[in-house]
Amino acid sequence: MPEFLTLLPPKEALERLFAHISFNPGSEDVDTISAPGRIVAHPVTAPHPLPAFPRSTVDGYAVRAGDTYGASDTLPAYLTVTGEVSMGTSPDFSLTAGRCGLIHTGGMLPAGSDAVIMVENTQVVREGEIEALRAVSVGENVLKIGEDVAFSDEIIPAGARLRPAEIGGLMALGITRVSVARRPLVGILSSGDEVVSPEANVRSGQVRDVNSYSLSALVEQAGGVPIRYGIIPDDAGRLFEVAFQALQACDLVVITAGSSASVRDLTAQVIDALGKPGVLVHGVNVRPGKPTILAACAVPAGSPPKPVIGLPGNPVSALVIAYLFIVPTLHRMLGMTNPEARLGLTARITINLPSQAGREDWVPVKLRMENNSFLAEPVFGRSNLIFTLVRADGLACIPADATGLEVGDPVTVFLF
Amino acid sequence: MPEFLTLLPPKEALERLFAHISFNPGSEDVDTISAPGRIVAHPVTAPHPLPAFPRSTVDGYAVRAGDTYGASDTLPAYLTVTGEVSMGTSPDFSLTAGRCGLIHTGGMLPAGSDAVIMVENTQVVREGEIEALRAVSVGENVLKIGEDVAFSDEIIPAGARLRPAEIGGLMALGITRVSVARRPLVGILSSGDEVVSPEANVRSGQVRDVNSYSLSALVEQAGGVPIRYGIIPDDAGRLFEVAFQALQACDLVVITAGSSASVRDLTAQVIDALGKPGVLVHGVNVRPGKPTILAACAVPAGSPPKPVIGLPGNPVSALVIAYLFIVPTLHRMLGMTNPEARLGLTARITINLPSQAGREDWVPVKLRMENNSFLAEPVFGRSNLIFTLVRADGLACIPADATGLEVGDPVTVFLF
Repeated sequence: MPEFLTLLPPKEALERLFAHISFNPGSEDVDTISAPGRIVAHPVTAPHPLPAFPRSTVDGYAVRAGDTYGASDTLPAYLTVTGEVSMGTSPDFSLTAGRCGLIHTGGMLPAGSDAVIMVENTQVVREGEIEALRAVSVGENVLKIGEDVAFSDEIIPAGARLRPAEIGGLMALGITRVSVARRPLVGILSSGDEVVSPEANVRSGQVRDVNSYSLSALVEQAGGVPIRYGIIPDDAGRLFEVAFQALQACDLVVITAGSSASVRDLTAQVIDALGKPGVLVHGVNVRPGKPTILAACAVPAGSPPKPVIGLPGNPVSALVIAYLFIVPTLHRMLGMTNPEARLGLTARITINLPSQAGREDWVPVKLRMENNSFLAEPVFGRSNLIFTLVRADGLACIPADATGLEVGDPVTVFLF
Repeated sequence: MPEFLTLLPPKEALERLFAHISFNPGSEDVDTISAPGRIVAHPVTAPHPLPAFPRSTVDGYAVRAGDTYGASDTLPAYLTVTGEVSMGTSPDFSLTAGRCGLIHTGGMLPAGSDAVIMVENTQVVREGEIEALRAVSVGENVLKIGEDVAFSDEIIPAGARLRPAEIGGLMALGITRVSVARRPLVGILSSGDEVVSPEANVRSGQVRDVNSYSLSALVEQAGGVPIRYGIIPDDAGRLFEVAFQALQACDLVVITAGSSASVRDLTAQVIDALGKPGVLVHGVNVRPGKPTILAACAVPAGSPPKPVIGLPGNPVSALVIAYLFIVPTLHRMLGMTNPEARLGLTARITINLPSQAGREDWVPVKLRMENNSFLAEPVFGRSNLIFTLVRADGLACIPADATGLEVGDPVTVFLF
């Protein structure tokens, strides 16, 4: 458990944490109407085919295709109009040879018809009779039953996020309730004798709590529910007490420690004492955020361990590490599939950026568009000041196997 | 106002609409804690500098830099330890020549000191005395007052979205309330005799309302508040009545019309009658979604016109057109700056896609990563079935000046 003896790469560190957690998100049924953004807990299947009846895709006449064979401008086929299909009803007539029915886009085909001829390809001869000026083939301009989805098709896999299209698709099938992953509860503790509430009158030497709020916002954005346990003084007993209470109530506990080495050690000891197996990773080969702690703690003993993440106190380090470790942990808890695709884009770096080989660097960048591709311009700030992040659009990764980037090199940028 | 006489390109169509609307979003004050995702209404300035006092960025000793000049491993400078800076307090001592003070990361520099020497570069000689093993320069390892932001700096411009970093930055400055753009109210009307509520028992010939719900989800995602006015039968009088009521109450009204030409004409006439100047665009050179209506209607007469958007009834066309017209209108109403950068990524198309020159095509695509770059694979579906969108990650644009795309061509993909 001592700090910094072995610095794991971030990916390995996260894998080590995940290996000790049994992800079992739990689900709840909600109204589809309130489900946008939620993650589907179980695969959703179609209770009936869609469309549920054969529909016309054009304005025209429902016909028996055979009646139009050979028809052309010069040699039209004559058809008797039997009736008109009213929208929203089952046609009250059926077609026999030589007959057709007026139909609108979305209308239901009458029995006996197997195609629709577009109104543009017809001509009214007299009341009740038309000329078909071309031939249509069987199925032309018709949506067959089940052509969108068939009965019992899996329409939404478990782990998918409900976007506007999914909400519409569920409603199309009459699925007005849906089972979604329960939102993980995330306990957030800020520690540090110098940290005071944002509402407080700040005295010289004190700083306001930033991390409780920036992390809350990130947790919400990632699909979790933040629960703030306030500011805890640098006292092992008090920190243990609050962290233990948070761990009983929450699915994940995040503690931001002070920045000095002694306070970080105190935090690591408290986390390790919370439950077995305790601290798994102490120090990660990443900048910023080296003094990160990843732990899994079983409370009570013998129960499945829950993740506890110790973040550096610096607001920028805390937020960068939260993007690297808390967001993927929440996505995993939610059972999300392929969440990365949403966030990364490729840009070209605008300056040379040296970096230490073997260490992964995350650099705040501002994006701008030039010739239809993105340029990523690093936003520099001494000692990771919070407003360097405010001035950035996202984080660019300098991979561990690089010794830096040269002007024009492609970088993956994760957007805030 | 007749349909399809002049098909405008989508960008020009939107510009014509925007030219008739006076965007005046209005603002409201909210707790910073509840503000993630909201758009800042007025520029936010710093009420005081940050940091508010000189802070150490390392664990070590606050010193007068001059006292360390020339110090080295072999010729250290001897300094007397006057005291220790407690975190969160103003130091109760100041430094005179030859003296130093123990300080932790984030601690406040005592009066008289102008630099910090890292603990690694010192050695304790005896209780109360240390050796400085190297020289530090003035300001070394110190964050000066205002180094993050200076007093009255603009820290967040109007139109910016409040992300986790902004929330943290506001709290760092004690700004616990913030003025954000009021969420625009969006009235949504579904029309069509064949359309029934998702809860209803569906009879043959009827379809469930998809658009009210997919559009509601999209409006929420874009920062608006959806208000559903239900399903209106294809009756001009009733449609006018409900649309007029919606327009009085909302900032934007969206009507999805049935798909047949006669119903679309009815919708256009109703929209045009709502208020002046009425229908501005009737038909857009885009696929899907050609029968789009853009209007600006003053209710009551003489008041600033509000946008009214008529969407095709097909759920895919409706959603694609909503991404192209409703989302940018909402972003403009919210006063958002540079909203596009968040959504577009570049991918390479996996097949040849023909398209008609002069028309902009939007194709649902599934993304996959190969060799660190995105491939966009078109998801095809006849007649724009809603589940083709469910199977897609976003929409790829085939620009109007292209006659199609060839395998490997870059495309911009807007993610759902």
